Amino acid sequence: MRASRYLIATQKETPADAEVISHQLMLRAGMIRKLAAGLYTWLPMGLRVLRKVERIVREEMDRSGAQEVLMPAVQPAELWQESGRWEQYGGELLRMNDRHGREFCFGPTHEEVITDLVRNELKSYKELPANFYQIQTKFRDERRPRFGVMRAREFIMKDAYSFHLNSESLDETYQVMHRTYCAIFDRLGLDYRPVQADSGAIGGSASHEFHVLASSGEDDIVFSTDSDYAANIEKAEAVAPAGDRPAATEPMAEVATPDQRTIDAVANFLKVDATRTVKTLIVRAEAADDGETGLVALVLRGDHTLNEIKAENLAGVAEPLTMATDEEIEQAVGCKPGSIGPVNLPLPVIVDRSAAHLADFICGANREGYHLTGVNWERDVPLARVEDLRNVVEGDPSPDGRGTLEIRRGIEVGHIFKLGNKYSKAMNATVLDEHGKAVIMEMGCYGVGVSRIVASSIEQNHDDRGIIWPDAIAPFEVAIVTLNAHKSPEVQEAGDRLYDQLRQAGFDVLLDDRNERPGVKFADMELIGIPHRVVISDRGLAAGTLEYKGRQDADKQDVAVEDILPFLIKASPRRGL
Amino acid sequence: MRASRYLIATQKETPADAEVISHQLMLRAGMIRKLAAGLYTWLPMGLRVLRKVERIVREEMDRSGAQEVLMPAVQPAELWQESGRWEQYGGELLRMNDRHGREFCFGPTHEEVITDLVRNELKSYKELPANFYQIQTKFRDERRPRFGVMRAREFIMKDAYSFHLNSESLDETYQVMHRTYCAIFDRLGLDYRPVQADSGAIGGSASHEFHVLASSGEDDIVFSTDSDYAANIEKAEAVAPAGDRPAATEPMAEVATPDQRTIDAVANFLKVDATRTVKTLIVRAEAADDGETGLVALVLRGDHTLNEIKAENLAGVAEPLTMATDEEIEQAVGCKPGSIGPVNLPLPVIVDRSAAHLADFICGANREGYHLTGVNWERDVPLARVEDLRNVVEGDPSPDGRGTLEIRRGIEVGHIFKLGNKYSKAMNATVLDEHGKAVIMEMGCYGVGVSRIVASSIEQNHDDRGIIWPDAIAPFEVAIVTLNAHKSPEVQEAGDRLYDQLRQAGFDVLLDDRNERPGVKFADMELIGIPHRVVISDRGLAAGTLEYKGRQDADKQDVAVEDILPFLIKASPRRGL
Repeated sequence: MRASRYLIATQKETPADAEVISHQLMLRAGMIRKLAAGLYTWLPMGLRVLRKVERIVREEMDRSGAQEVLMPAVQPAELWQESGRWEQYGGELLRMNDRHGREFCFGPTHEEVITDLVRNELKSYKELPANFYQIQTKFRDERRPRFGVMRAREFIMKDAYSFHLNSESLDETYQVMHRTYCAIFDRLGLDYRPVQADSGAIGGSASHEFHVLASSGEDDIVFSTDSDYAANIEKAEAVAPAGDRPAATEPMAEVATPDQRTIDAVANFLKVDATRTVKTLIVRAEAADDGETGLVALVLRGDHTLNEIKAENLAGVAEPLTMATDEEIEQAVGCKPGSIGPVNLPLPVIVDRSAAHLADFICGANREGYHLTGVNWERDVPLARVEDLRNVVEGDPSPDGRGTLEIRRGIEVGHIFKLGNKYSKAMNATVLDEHGKAVIMEMGCYGVGVSRIVASSIEQNHDDRGIIWPDAIAPFEVAIVTLNAHKSPEVQEAGDRLYDQLRQAGFDVLLDDRNERPGVKFADMELIGIPHRVVISDRGLAAGTLEYKGRQDADKQDVAVEDILPFLIKASPRRGL
Repeated sequence: MRASRYLIATQKETPADAEVISHQLMLRAGMIRKLAAGLYTWLPMGLRVLRKVERIVREEMDRSGAQEVLMPAVQPAELWQESGRWEQYGGELLRMNDRHGREFCFGPTHEEVITDLVRNELKSYKELPANFYQIQTKFRDERRPRFGVMRAREFIMKDAYSFHLNSESLDETYQVMHRTYCAIFDRLGLDYRPVQADSGAIGGSASHEFHVLASSGEDDIVFSTDSDYAANIEKAEAVAPAGDRPAATEPMAEVATPDQRTIDAVANFLKVDATRTVKTLIVRAEAADDGETGLVALVLRGDHTLNEIKAENLAGVAEPLTMATDEEIEQAVGCKPGSIGPVNLPLPVIVDRSAAHLADFICGANREGYHLTGVNWERDVPLARVEDLRNVVEGDPSPDGRGTLEIRRGIEVGHIFKLGNKYSKAMNATVLDEHGKAVIMEMGCYGVGVSRIVASSIEQNHDDRGIIWPDAIAPFEVAIVTLNAHKSPEVQEAGDRLYDQLRQAGFDVLLDDRNERPGVKFADMELIGIPHRVVISDRGLAAGTLEYKGRQDADKQDVAVEDILPFLIKASPRRGL
């Protein structure tokens, strides 16, 4: 491509409303433009990257044996009513009515459509397993779209859905997809981790997320220092402290703590560490058979934070997790939230494993402005139910018994689920087994955030001059920069010749033939992040050389004109030996 | 691809609700499945065809110098309000509200979005001309979606938009796009015609449609027998009859025509040819400055039909064309529609060129149950305004003066428009010219119906056994059919070997390794329409031969095993010399 005939829409200024570096650089490098909140146009330069990501995803999915289809973006409400999600999905589902008043949505995901297709097309166990995927524009009406294409409302996703006669077959395909995702993210040059994840609202029995590690990530990812253990903090188990609970040494006593309503305030006021206190959170209980919903108390060590996913997954706790209001708490307990504790609390109590290991601890007295000190489980308050309720913290022991935990931020770029029969059962998707009996199929689903990958790669690959693309997804692999070509026919000819030569050798080449100052051209090529740069100047040509600089190199080097092709082939990881 | 691991979703029965052959064959060959009215899923076999069409379109657009972008499918109402189309567009625009109640639509076309982008990005005449395209899913909420993907609601379109400093530059790019479209449709192997077209509601000053000729087409396309003249019947000029109008020979007389309300009935009753009669249609007039809308009479020869596009494009006639109601006519004229004529009609009259050439003609008497005979223009009724009002008919002279007109049916697969400044003016899209003055850009727009092309190709390429794909867009180029491979390791091995050999040579190959009867396999491969078939059998292998049959060949032929690759290379137009 000749830059003079191409939209090089670089910008010097950092856009004010772009918070993360990838969003800033995608705007500055002329990759995307905002149309409206969460809606972005891909400019030519950005689209080249997106298409290369798509191609890698497609190649690896094809290699895995999955078959590509393309389902409509617009989906009829009837199918979502059949699965039960029309009511459940909430505000992220963009709903609409057609000219005849029929209800539709812009598909955020396609479980219903593919399940409907497969129940009509596949009749026999002999046709299983089958795995169908598509690369398609989705819409999720995020309440707060942000970070550019990282959390856009309209985005491109690869979604795949597999169908199985039984769970063993699902397990096999799940493993194949796990390996396929590793192959995809390896080829994309990302520093990523597959981590255990909660299955979430989409349902199912097991799932892994694939996270790109980056400080701008919105998820906390937990790793072991000494093993392969990795999990989303939503899912990471906080193991019970080792050993027995220490024996009680203090008597229980009530102390006045006027106006001290937070753990920090109370700990500070009583001059103890927050690790010696517990906090008691009141949430809605799961609805009983008669529809009544009461309250439940969750007790955590004062310095720990509640893991909402773990809590809402517990029997007896409402899902989604719903905090009780101040009024509900006062009515049930007789005091305000800042003074609650488990002693004589007229509610069911669930105690976190770490809180359950405390002795001589401090908690609210269920009396406004008072706390209890020297409280001990069993002696002062029964310990009826102990569960894992909290988020792990750095230094916690790894759940696999090897090493301790570290926490880093991650950007979710892939997710694989065992759906089980959640959709196939609701939609009666069956095949005949070898005995001629209709059996509900098992399903898996597998997503990759194609457009998000572009932003994630930039989060990991940039410097203060701009983007540093891996060769595999760079918009162009080589930039040829001609200096003063409008004054020098030799430079112009050499540029044209090298451009043709490299294109014939299979390189994606941008010939920067714009009539701009060298500094402007160099800055643009670095901002755009093209991995290899060759400069052609009169001075170099006089010496028979071109100037090469890799995007990450500290220094330039001269290369003889006749050696440049083998030099670039060697420098390019896609082609190098 | 191995058929045993691929969704071969062929069907024997012709689906009841599929009216046209392409829709029937796409369903029967397992290319598409209906999700809801006008919404189709592309199955793996159909998607391969669609992607090949996309690739050809993309390659030729890139070659033309156009730059690919990707705009959001979901567009904010504000831009459509700026262009004025939010109110104008009508029921085909799928409108929706997001979670915050803001108005959006699912883009049926992208003039507003690209104009907004370009007015922000391009500042100088030096950056012009520029042509941006995308290949994208669109939605038009057709009142009556039909014919499968031919007239679906959700469909894939290539849309391009060019920007220019002046109309000369627009003319140049328009010609480049005309040539590019010819290159695209040539490569797709379609029998098509570029024809002059009306610019329609999208606006602009000139346009051509590209029509695939097929009896199922929804448009009438007009050609000259002796020249390159071709036009959509909407646009085809009906030239005035040659020579002077014949002289009057009869006196005007009123005759009773009780209960004769149509042209055919009156002509039959009076025992004259319909060509000797005129019909008078009453339509709404263009609103006057004070907002008043009256009526206008349109007079045509009895055997001719009104061309609504020509009529509504006339000064003084309301657009869109609106027929007057019976009540309005009775109120204005004093009789029912079946007895109206131009003589003493108290309305403005516009006469078609052919009707204006009649002498001694018959028309309604503006008196219930009576007609006038022997009517002559000028003598009995003034001839104030003569226009081209009618559809051409076969045998009419060509407007270019060479040959006569023929009419065939066409499917519109491409459309190029000179938009002029319709959008750029409404949205104030300017660049600075060489004198530093802001000028409104000129625009062109260029569409290709990518998914519709797949159906159009089938309309032109099928027989009673199924589809006949051109090599360029066939889902697979070669089908290898192994006979009884589950019983013959030799056949299976030879199949695997040939499969690998052909794939390495760059062919798209389907190895039909299914454990099915030969007849089933042959019928499926013919229904799917794979251009080249190679059969491997024990008997053939014993003689050292494979059996070849082209999809359109009457006879099979034996080819020596070692000659099959060069044979196929020669048989394949994509590779043959």
